[in-house]
Amino acid sequence: MPPRSDSDLAFASIEQVAALIRRRKVSPVELAKLMLGRVERLNPRLNAFITVTAETALAQAAKAEAELFRSRGRKGRRDRGPLHGIPVSLKDNIHTKDIRTTAGSRILADFVPGQDASVAAKLKNAGAVLLGKTNMHEFAYGVTSNNPHYGAVRNPWDLARISGGSSGGSAAAVAAGLCYASVGTDTGGSIRIPAALCGVAGLKPAWGRVSCEGIIPLSVSLDCAGPLARSARDAALVFAAILPGGPAALDFPRVTNGAARKRRFRLGLPQEFFFDVLTEEVRELFEAALRDLRKLGAETKGISIPLLRDTEDAGNQIAWAEAAHYHQKAGFFPARAAEYSDDVRSRLEKGRKVPAVAYLEALSMRRRFIEELRARMREAEVDALVVPATSIPAPLIGEESVKIGAQDFPARALLLRLNRPANLAGVPAISIPCGFTRSGLPVGLQLIGRDRAEETVLQIAQSYQRATDWHLRRPPL
Amino acid sequence: MPPRSDSDLAFASIEQVAALIRRRKVSPVELAKLMLGRVERLNPRLNAFITVTAETALAQAAKAEAELFRSRGRKGRRDRGPLHGIPVSLKDNIHTKDIRTTAGSRILADFVPGQDASVAAKLKNAGAVLLGKTNMHEFAYGVTSNNPHYGAVRNPWDLARISGGSSGGSAAAVAAGLCYASVGTDTGGSIRIPAALCGVAGLKPAWGRVSCEGIIPLSVSLDCAGPLARSARDAALVFAAILPGGPAALDFPRVTNGAARKRRFRLGLPQEFFFDVLTEEVRELFEAALRDLRKLGAETKGISIPLLRDTEDAGNQIAWAEAAHYHQKAGFFPARAAEYSDDVRSRLEKGRKVPAVAYLEALSMRRRFIEELRARMREAEVDALVVPATSIPAPLIGEESVKIGAQDFPARALLLRLNRPANLAGVPAISIPCGFTRSGLPVGLQLIGRDRAEETVLQIAQSYQRATDWHLRRPPL
Repeated sequence: MPPRSDSDLAFASIEQVAALIRRRKVSPVELAKLMLGRVERLNPRLNAFITVTAETALAQAAKAEAELFRSRGRKGRRDRGPLHGIPVSLKDNIHTKDIRTTAGSRILADFVPGQDASVAAKLKNAGAVLLGKTNMHEFAYGVTSNNPHYGAVRNPWDLARISGGSSGGSAAAVAAGLCYASVGTDTGGSIRIPAALCGVAGLKPAWGRVSCEGIIPLSVSLDCAGPLARSARDAALVFAAILPGGPAALDFPRVTNGAARKRRFRLGLPQEFFFDVLTEEVRELFEAALRDLRKLGAETKGISIPLLRDTEDAGNQIAWAEAAHYHQKAGFFPARAAEYSDDVRSRLEKGRKVPAVAYLEALSMRRRFIEELRARMREAEVDALVVPATSIPAPLIGEESVKIGAQDFPARALLLRLNRPANLAGVPAISIPCGFTRSGLPVGLQLIGRDRAEETVLQIAQSYQRATDWHLRRPPL
Repeated sequence: MPPRSDSDLAFASIEQVAALIRRRKVSPVELAKLMLGRVERLNPRLNAFITVTAETALAQAAKAEAELFRSRGRKGRRDRGPLHGIPVSLKDNIHTKDIRTTAGSRILADFVPGQDASVAAKLKNAGAVLLGKTNMHEFAYGVTSNNPHYGAVRNPWDLARISGGSSGGSAAAVAAGLCYASVGTDTGGSIRIPAALCGVAGLKPAWGRVSCEGIIPLSVSLDCAGPLARSARDAALVFAAILPGGPAALDFPRVTNGAARKRRFRLGLPQEFFFDVLTEEVRELFEAALRDLRKLGAETKGISIPLLRDTEDAGNQIAWAEAAHYHQKAGFFPARAAEYSDDVRSRLEKGRKVPAVAYLEALSMRRRFIEELRARMREAEVDALVVPATSIPAPLIGEESVKIGAQDFPARALLLRLNRPANLAGVPAISIPCGFTRSGLPVGLQLIGRDRAEETVLQIAQSYQRATDWHLRRPPL
């Protein structure tokens, strides 16, 4: 079904667009112009981009067009695969050669890297067209993307609400049809939280799977780079492109085509932690998603992972200490403390006070948790854990605490809570939309995989998305 | 040349003894009895052993004898290699099944492990006969082996002096001919320092090369287990036996027979740090050793490694923090602070105060140092660095500071100083005797190898020992 309007084209899947390009129904330059037009029109409301790279985008699109549209057999013709000519964005903590990279900070407001980060170079090599650098939480150290220097990123589903963070601009841009995909980073949920709050797919790969070279770090032993896209299938295409080794390093047909290997998935439902604190709506939508998964043939079973309860503190200690160390080493903090927002500054101050013994104890807890999670998932023979992505839908911008039942909780903690376990364990996890609240806010379903099995979570997510259409809804912009 | 007396036998090389056993000139049981007799006679003066395992030794010797002396072709005959029937000792922080393992502490005074440490099991499997567990610095956290709970280990060359530490009992027992070899541990010099002060060979393997499983840790990212023996050749035999994979994991002929591959060694003389603070006698003996090495065909060249100056603080930060973490996790400190000696307690208190950012900065300095050392040694094409093992010979027991020129230095710092670089870099290093002071105290020559090249330092040390006889001298006991 060919897109019937510019908006349809903007919201088409990467594969649909790639096919249209190859049938010359749309040219990469037209496509770049269409998306740049949308950015120009909608970004003032969303504030998803810090830097729009229109010239770069048009030059890259022209190059893609020349490579793809040259007659067959002619010298210089080249098809770089599914991302060739596809407009994308990058979170602004990812080094881009000759394009400023602020990390959402004032300190790096004028920083222009001399080299592309590994993921940026890989997307360039895949022929993707860079529309710009997306807004984010300052130095990726927070989950609201309420940025004091570049303004808050607004949620496409309700402009009064946060996009989540720290990759909030990436999620908002993808959700609003301003680009087909983005690459973000996830240290404690920074890909999955905004994906959930903006109703897109966000994959945090296993730790170490995608190179973080050239990415401004938050917490080096937790940081992961990964894709945000409108569907799990689109995310899989981007993941394959940024993986060292490329698609060849993956069971690629399985990743991009769940149908190729139909089988009953076994999903673990953790008996601890994940379901303790949820809004009623999140709980209901999660349960509906579970019913849909079972209809698709998935088997669900309870699984006990007692150490889950300790992941929150361990994740905090590690991130606090490693972030404070990076900012000290870079000469940013405490040297330039006044240039930070209060929230990031207070966390860095906390980080400087973490004793090494507490940090080492957190690392040791992490090892125990990794062993326990691995053992329990293996014993239970589950392919993935299925849980909500966040305890709450998007809070209002500036809303610091959220009521669940009669109790007030800090919004930050509620957003992080269900995401940290996968970071601590270093395992892959994806968030995909699984419904909307009565007020129209998306809610995310999280699949947490084993070891390095991105293929499996992508495959399960695609099965779910073939049977549901939450990911096809468009925000009311 | 067969040993002419019991004393000659006690000081013979492992290969000589192994040959005598195989020619039935001496039986493993006789040998065990001879050595147990020496322990009984000399240990009251040396205090090298915390626990003597006479019964175990005699049973193991009887087993070795049965295996080795059974007629050829008879069932049960078995030759386990060069350590079969050879009396050895183990530092008392190495778990030994059913034999108490105190780590030189009061806290573990009655601790009896249920399992052998990996190195203990490997020696057992090689047929070595365990005479006992050697005295050491409390919890391996110091360099004097002046143990408050089990008494000071005394230096066989001068009973008023320290043996060095933390593997002081191992070095003293080997030097005094109470066993043929021992296994110690080295976190900041704890094998090489007592080897140097007692005039024996001590090899610190590359980090991670020999398993530390079942060894009570000091600083997990620095701890290494390795052999102390009378010659580099004997040390090589023990090293091969305790290495995972055994002798097969090594270029074994090269390790045990330097002559097999004669070539000119290239030795680097660091231009920084190592020669800044030395007593005149240590300097003279080192220079004489250099002349001997050059006579043997070694080429020496200056090599600049500027980061050496920062190794001291980085090593301290890492060890302080990791030691404090282990003692906290084990429930020892601060819970049982009163049961520690003042010196170890003060270091653990220091460790609890190390901020995580300082620890992380030390790790980051370590990575830079590893890169610099590797690059400089590669560029200079040197096989090893050649330096002194310690700045001073053995101080008196209780002597806290030592004068060099007009200046007083803490004895602890002078003993550690030249040893930490190899720990921080994780590279192999050996100390072998290279002469005696006018008052008859041994001085150590240190060879620091590249990456995992234990073979090379062992080979150079053997070349040196074939041409010199410092390692053959016997202490005046």
